[in-house]
Amino acid sequence: MPSQNSPIKVGILGATGTVGQRFIQLLAVHPYFTIHALGASSRSAGHEYSKIVKWKLGTEIPEHVKGMVVQECRPDANGFAECGVVFSGLDHDVAGEIEFAFRAAELVVFSNAKNYRRDPVVPLMVPLVNPSHLSVVNHQRTTLSPPTKKGYIVTNANCSTTGLVVPLYALEKAFGPLETVMVTTMQAISGAGYPGVSSLDIMDNVVPYIGSEEEKIEWETSKILGGVTSDGQGFDLHASDPIKISASCNRVPVIDGHTGCVSVKFKRHPPPSPEQVIQAFKDFRCEAQDLGVPSAPKRAIVYLDAPDRPQPRLDRDLENGACVSVGRVRPCPVLDVKFVCLIDNVRLGAATSSIMNAEIAVERGYIEA
Amino acid sequence: MPSQNSPIKVGILGATGTVGQRFIQLLAVHPYFTIHALGASSRSAGHEYSKIVKWKLGTEIPEHVKGMVVQECRPDANGFAECGVVFSGLDHDVAGEIEFAFRAAELVVFSNAKNYRRDPVVPLMVPLVNPSHLSVVNHQRTTLSPPTKKGYIVTNANCSTTGLVVPLYALEKAFGPLETVMVTTMQAISGAGYPGVSSLDIMDNVVPYIGSEEEKIEWETSKILGGVTSDGQGFDLHASDPIKISASCNRVPVIDGHTGCVSVKFKRHPPPSPEQVIQAFKDFRCEAQDLGVPSAPKRAIVYLDAPDRPQPRLDRDLENGACVSVGRVRPCPVLDVKFVCLIDNVRLGAATSSIMNAEIAVERGYIEA
Amino acid sequence: MPSQNSPIKVGILGATGTVGQRFIQLLAVHPYFTIHALGASSRSAGHEYSKIVKWKLGTEIPEHVKGMVVQECRPDANGFAECGVVFSGLDHDVAGEIEFAFRAAELVVFSNAKNYRRDPVVPLMVPLVNPSHLSVVNHQRTTLSPPTKKGYIVTNANCSTTGLVVPLYALEKAFGPLETVMVTTMQAISGAGYPGVSSLDIMDNVVPYIGSEEEKIEWETSKILGGVTSDGQGFDLHASDPIKISASCNRVPVIDGHTGCVSVKFKRHPPPSPEQVIQAFKDFRCEAQDLGVPSAPKRAIVYLDAPDRPQPRLDRDLENGACVSVGRVRPCPVLDVKFVCLIDNVRLGAATSSIMNAEIAVERGYIEA
Amino acid sequence: MPSQNSPIKVGILGATGTVGQRFIQLLAVHPYFTIHALGASSRSAGHEYSKIVKWKLGTEIPEHVKGMVVQECRPDANGFAECGVVFSGLDHDVAGEIEFAFRAAELVVFSNAKNYRRDPVVPLMVPLVNPSHLSVVNHQRTTLSPPTKKGYIVTNANCSTTGLVVPLYALEKAFGPLETVMVTTMQAISGAGYPGVSSLDIMDNVVPYIGSEEEKIEWETSKILGGVTSDGQGFDLHASDPIKISASCNRVPVIDGHTGCVSVKFKRHPPPSPEQVIQAFKDFRCEAQDLGVPSAPKRAIVYLDAPDRPQPRLDRDLENGACVSVGRVRPCPVLDVKFVCLIDNVRLGAATSSIMNAEIAVERGYIEA
Repeated sequence: MPSQNSPIKVGILGATGTVGQRFIQLLAVHPYFTIHALGASSRSAGHEYSKIVKWKLGTEIPEHVKGMVVQECRPDANGFAECGVVFSGLDHDVAGEIEFAFRAAELVVFSNAKNYRRDPVVPLMVPLVNPSHLSVVNHQRTTLSPPTKKGYIVTNANCSTTGLVVPLYALEKAFGPLETVMVTTMQAISGAGYPGVSSLDIMDNVVPYIGSEEEKIEWETSKILGGVTSDGQGFDLHASDPIKISASCNRVPVIDGHTGCVSVKFKRHPPPSPEQVIQAFKDFRCEAQDLGVPSAPKRAIVYLDAPDRPQPRLDRDLENGACVSVGRVRPCPVLDVKFVCLIDNVRLGAATSSIMNAEIAVERGYIEA
Repeated sequence: MPSQNSPIKVGILGATGTVGQRFIQLLAVHPYFTIHALGASSRSAGHEYSKIVKWKLGTEIPEHVKGMVVQECRPDANGFAECGVVFSGLDHDVAGEIEFAFRAAELVVFSNAKNYRRDPVVPLMVPLVNPSHLSVVNHQRTTLSPPTKKGYIVTNANCSTTGLVVPLYALEKAFGPLETVMVTTMQAISGAGYPGVSSLDIMDNVVPYIGSEEEKIEWETSKILGGVTSDGQGFDLHASDPIKISASCNRVPVIDGHTGCVSVKFKRHPPPSPEQVIQAFKDFRCEAQDLGVPSAPKRAIVYLDAPDRPQPRLDRDLENGACVSVGRVRPCPVLDVKFVCLIDNVRLGAATSSIMNAEIAVERGYIEA
Repeated sequence: MPSQNSPIKVGILGATGTVGQRFIQLLAVHPYFTIHALGASSRSAGHEYSKIVKWKLGTEIPEHVKGMVVQECRPDANGFAECGVVFSGLDHDVAGEIEFAFRAAELVVFSNAKNYRRDPVVPLMVPLVNPSHLSVVNHQRTTLSPPTKKGYIVTNANCSTTGLVVPLYALEKAFGPLETVMVTTMQAISGAGYPGVSSLDIMDNVVPYIGSEEEKIEWETSKILGGVTSDGQGFDLHASDPIKISASCNRVPVIDGHTGCVSVKFKRHPPPSPEQVIQAFKDFRCEAQDLGVPSAPKRAIVYLDAPDRPQPRLDRDLENGACVSVGRVRPCPVLDVKFVCLIDNVRLGAATSSIMNAEIAVERGYIEA
Repeated sequence: MPSQNSPIKVGILGATGTVGQRFIQLLAVHPYFTIHALGASSRSAGHEYSKIVKWKLGTEIPEHVKGMVVQECRPDANGFAECGVVFSGLDHDVAGEIEFAFRAAELVVFSNAKNYRRDPVVPLMVPLVNPSHLSVVNHQRTTLSPPTKKGYIVTNANCSTTGLVVPLYALEKAFGPLETVMVTTMQAISGAGYPGVSSLDIMDNVVPYIGSEEEKIEWETSKILGGVTSDGQGFDLHASDPIKISASCNRVPVIDGHTGCVSVKFKRHPPPSPEQVIQAFKDFRCEAQDLGVPSAPKRAIVYLDAPDRPQPRLDRDLENGACVSVGRVRPCPVLDVKFVCLIDNVRLGAATSSIMNAEIAVERGYIEA
């Protein structure tokens, strides 16, 4: 297994962006991934990282990254060939082609971009939910022309989807399939990247629209909560028990942390009581925890008993941003039960998910040490 | 009828509070209501208004109000006896007793407080929705001991309820009864009064809980959307077609303007299409408009076609804060249709509703000029 | 003189931008200026205004402007030739050439852009301070090649400079020249245009730097407070009594309204007392008021006695945004006196200044009715 | 010396307040201070800490503190007698009497309250500036009646004063006495405690007034930057070189971190150049660092070269909130040099200062292990 003495070199695509900066911040203190190559736009390529990044995090740029020379996002650029994993924080307008090229060059790509999420042979993987989907990369490789030996792509989910599916998975695990889910999100500005949301648009305001976000939640949830098909070549999309999902997405003046107000209806009659639901959240344990991968949180779901929690400013740092916090479980007069959930959209909602996904892949032998 | 030459004197209870200040701002330019008496706590009584108020509005204190001497909130305090209407912006912890005393003293009270909203003989009146409820005050007077000749109480609804029932009423008027309503609100800080929400609680944050707000929405909606019983002595609470309502309420860092994400299901099958719903919102007209009372908006509902509207900062001033703005009508994968609504919580959600209710009462002869 | 029956047609350059929108909002209700032509980038040209503008004001787009077809910013584009004045809200990167071309085409340009502010024959005019500078346009015309008959340019000052020079002018008028001025500004995000400041940069933050803003304040103040040279051909830059000025500029999370903390030292010994300074602010009257031009505020300076005023959210709407509000006059342990001033940066700090400047020019015969 | 195996028990007065919570957060991970007693109002006394605190920090309540029973703030309450130090985060309205009583009971009090700051025998100690003042506690004990053997009080400075005096001390150390200091502060809401600033007062706003804050900065600075009198019995208040100081204080919508815009004039002629000033900030080292006390930052001043730094949201966490960050050194057209400084007002500006002061006292033998 890898270790600090026997590390795995990693590359970061989109290293100067919001997600890229988080990758760097988190990987700089990782027990066995070591930052080896940074990719960004050709405008930045050739320059020292600290010279061209607009670093927006409250911690300093890791010392050994400051002087690294940024490369173009090409698999033949200096350093990528030696990488056991390449993390992608690229914008979707360029992610499609670049990630394709990296995979074709026999590189393993763990991506935060949306481009391949709906691809029928690419795992859409939330580390606290569906690590079993990883196995489909074996088939993925064979579908390419030419087939790859090592190269494949795994994506993580949209940030607000991730915050939703973790508690939904806990519920399905404890009580069987859900029939209906309604969610209204209140999403942080950091979800839109940098410069992202103009301050004139969001100060003293709510914007009740985030382009294509509702569709992402409504679609991705079924892929993630569903299983692998029996032939191991794809995903069943929860098809035998289709879930009706309705999402309403809002941008609010919060820096980090997406909050969701969720109501659910179970297939099971009678449904579990609110007390049983609370217990299920408190008891929830997932495979990433059992595997003990380095970024796995101690508690995948933190259930908060106070009547006014979770709150983004107070709870987004729980478990170093790697959990979903949940509170306010109570009866829903329309469906069965409603509750509030919160995710740190830039950590578990983005970079932390990619990294934990890769850690699971290492553990399972899908990434060579 | 009253006019600037033949005005109706009005009193304001809780004149130094957030709602009281709005009453003063709005009534200072009213065509026939003229501010005659100001009531506040005994600590403020005896002082000039401008000396003891912490005025928090962006307009100046009306010149003729500055020097008015504040009274205690007692019906025998100087000035109240001559008032044709007394508006109450009192806090609920004192509103119950004070409003009771004013009514007993043969004064007409239009209140923004919650105390009498569930009283079976007190109209819970949203001026753009249910002015017909006003007639029950005749019966209200007879139930008191001793019965009053003139004195009665009318309340307006909770601010977030008001923002919801206007579009719901438009839908019921056009398409018949609703079966199910789900709403998630994102409510402004001004709804909590002053000092109200601590800045440490709400900056860069969402608080997914507002005490008893969800219950208010879930209960008040049926009283408002329902009719008067056939004997004219009470309210039917929409009982023949009960509506299932589920509300989730959140405080967000917005100064004024409550936003709601709403999904509805109609009794009618098939339900109206989104296009028909949009048209119903655009065509909506209500009795307050037909009566032409001074505070009635030109458009009771302003439907906004842009995909990202309504937004509190941009739309709360539409129609001088006396309308509900609505947008984003689209199919709901779970219920029938979903949309976004916005209300200025301190105007139509509070002071403007009380004033417009009183204007309707003047027009209908329930207040003597 | 012009009137509603005999209006003056005006054009607006940069009509879709932040300042352009304010021009439209304010001019739509002007007693004698009537919006006749709108100029914007070639991308917008040819389209109806309401179709391409991202309208960001809390009032609706004026009805008759919605359908106006936007032109390119060329003097020969449809409509500009008939305009008695052209207002410019252009960005500085294009304002220089476009305004030059409009002037050469015999059009009168009142600009909010910075490009010509330091031009020795262009008035840098704050309507509440130095309307006498207007006379230099006569000489300006003769310096051009070829000289113009009608065309000239007048600029207004930087928004934060404007907020500073109005109280400084009141002090110099009452007590003679100032020797030293120190100012620290806390400036609103709207000063940076749209999209302008990213929300990730300013929420829960202060940015202690605004590019070249300190230099503008330090330089423009002397031109504005100085007089016209004796030959009438330029400006004396307050040269006989040079003022030492030091500015520190900060961006803060405020939507509209620039606040300044100012300390001043007078040449006069002993200096006026704080009480005398307060009286001078309260007594201040300026030429724009004497002329009675339509946009002149009733009070050019509003002095606020409360110890914690002015505040941007509460005071920026005073006098419809056309005044400077001042408070907290008190002794300065280092210089003589310190105080706080506030300007609505998008009205008196930008569009209102241009419009009031033009009104003065109409009154004085520099613009033909 | 104390250690984890041989710890010093500490008490915390005002344990439920904003500063008290920070004390708990910081002391819970301290190498040798161990939380032994918690004091709060009589309303809270007798209850478990986690039951009555409104915990407002983004980290969880330390596990072993949750169940601690809160005491009244009396020296004879359970636990205080065994404490080597008692930290006080009390409000000033009760701090005077309580701290007096604790000292009289032979307890050592390190206080964040303002009550004893101007006491001529109480050190006003900023750990990065004037640890030498500590020696005056010997004399302090003898002035009491009856004199104490062990008990004394040390206070730390006001949060905004602390952010100012650290860079001023660096300048005086490098270049000799200052003649003049002008500072405008932009202070965070957390400086006002909880509930503190109402959100209605500060959202989209600046409040240019903080009660008695300007006087604190103007007075405290001289005590801190001055020395101990030659007889060791008091403080010289920088009297031989009096500094003229003018402060203007503002509240801004920032959660944590006070920013200051500072201009200074040196006695020395010619003054140091901006480059020399920058170098002095970069080279600055203080006694707390030399002593190597646990809370001492690696860098007491972090000089930031970027033109737009320091910024509260990005830089308040530098050195775990225990340093002052400085930037934008440049010439001042009025005085000599101006710059921007930033302090984490709740850490170095409050709890961290008290703790580091106590660590220095341990190191110097003023607190018994």
